[in-house]
Amino acid sequence: MKLVRYGAVGTEKPGLIDSAGALRDLSSVIHDIDAKALGHEGLARLANVDPRQLPQVEGQPRYGTPVAHVGKMICVGMNYAEHAAETNAPVPQMPVIFMKATSAIVGPNDDVIIPQGSTKTDWEVELGVVIGETARSVSEEEALSYVAGYLVVNDLSERDFQFEHGGQWVKGKSCDTFGPLGPWLVTADDVPDPQNLGLWLEVNGHRYQNGHTRTMIFSVAKLVSHISRYMTLQPGDVISTGTPAGVGLGQKPPIYLRDGDVIELGIEGLGQQRQQVHTHASSGNVTA
Amino acid sequence: MKLVRYGAVGTEKPGLIDSAGALRDLSSVIHDIDAKALGHEGLARLANVDPRQLPQVEGQPRYGTPVAHVGKMICVGMNYAEHAAETNAPVPQMPVIFMKATSAIVGPNDDVIIPQGSTKTDWEVELGVVIGETARSVSEEEALSYVAGYLVVNDLSERDFQFEHGGQWVKGKSCDTFGPLGPWLVTADDVPDPQNLGLWLEVNGHRYQNGHTRTMIFSVAKLVSHISRYMTLQPGDVISTGTPAGVGLGQKPPIYLRDGDVIELGIEGLGQQRQQVHTHASSGNVTA
Repeated sequence: MKLVRYGAVGTEKPGLIDSAGALRDLSSVIHDIDAKALGHEGLARLANVDPRQLPQVEGQPRYGTPVAHVGKMICVGMNYAEHAAETNAPVPQMPVIFMKATSAIVGPNDDVIIPQGSTKTDWEVELGVVIGETARSVSEEEALSYVAGYLVVNDLSERDFQFEHGGQWVKGKSCDTFGPLGPWLVTADDVPDPQNLGLWLEVNGHRYQNGHTRTMIFSVAKLVSHISRYMTLQPGDVISTGTPAGVGLGQKPPIYLRDGDVIELGIEGLGQQRQQVHTHASSGNVTA
Repeated sequence: MKLVRYGAVGTEKPGLIDSAGALRDLSSVIHDIDAKALGHEGLARLANVDPRQLPQVEGQPRYGTPVAHVGKMICVGMNYAEHAAETNAPVPQMPVIFMKATSAIVGPNDDVIIPQGSTKTDWEVELGVVIGETARSVSEEEALSYVAGYLVVNDLSERDFQFEHGGQWVKGKSCDTFGPLGPWLVTADDVPDPQNLGLWLEVNGHRYQNGHTRTMIFSVAKLVSHISRYMTLQPGDVISTGTPAGVGLGQKPPIYLRDGDVIELGIEGLGQQRQQVHTHASSGNVTA
């Protein structure tokens, strides 16, 4: 299933994309795509719904983040060896984790705002993992059974804020609009192998990132298991699993986002995002 | 006002402590102590309630965290010079910030669980700041007007997880039960100067921390302003403002929490907490 939330900011409704690619309204079945909907029971209930019985949504509504009320957003750093190399970081022996403030989360095609004082706003396409069941110290073998589904994440990052403003990385990861999620949450049953997905990102039509999840240092199963030993993962939590090579910081010389840029990114089977970039001053429609 | 949430885990009710120290039930006035209740309008409404008209709660109920649905918990590192010195860290030029997973938050007197594999679980008494109104790039001068109130925080920390497990600090800060908050949220009108509060912590009756908020490197106003430039602060967010000297890591040799220890801590005017420490194996009542 491809689950979505659509409509204006703050009043999104739940929906799904049917096999013909049409948007169907799920409001009569569930209140929202939230912790309750994402567990095994909730997803089984949705799987029993015949999409043809749901009202088709007309027009081209905005997509919001496909998960409501994300409790925490945990990001993984340096999880692709070539990305570690391009940022002059060692290949980690254990997963590097940090947080992105949930206030940074926006819809997949909402504007990205370069924050006040920023000169180094950067992109990062990543595979996002949405937790469906409470996971506490789970083994690598059983880890994937706690996953509700997958989505595209752009883990936007301000490199000065991240590295030069007195620490820790969260400072450069949490600005408003720095967490586009979606367009869809693709349920785990439709993603046979999360380590077999191509992912890519372009700025103004130039392809900067072109990676594959088979080259992750720590697999999704390993990450879920590892993180669950440090903190309980709750339904609706999102883990962003790190970015492949090709970020702005890794270009020679580095290239950063500027007013008017267009970012497009996607993951095989999980859909794609498109963001227009605005500077803080020029933005009239902060969506966060 | 002293606002509380009382009752069993997950079914807490809102309450207040009246001038005689008695617990009164606020359920007839508000649904919960949440984002809606903590804004200027919500607090003004509560201030108009005559506590004598509210039912008095009998017995000794458990206190939960005084804020429901904390959106994010932002912690400040190295914000007292003597604490920076005891951990061999430089005095920061800009506030050091990191996150604690909200899944770590518990009530003020709930058990603290030493996580599996831990040998260095440590204590940190801190002044917590609860946001009442959305704050985005606010000035230091206006910052305190965005604060709903204050509370006691024990920022429990696992030092190996924090420093030796591949980074970042969030790994050592986010274990279940590592965030006791409360007992009360004391509204800002009852805290004339957040930089004039003594704070202390004892383990098994021995006083390890004995500090004062006047010795903070960055004031509460400065912190709220600074953090609001990196991320939007939302009603119900909590900022924990750093710990004074006297943590376990700073003892010579270091001392860490063990099964059966009792932690007591408090802040002038904000009440006190008491936690019984259990190892992961011995705990039969994880409260998170």
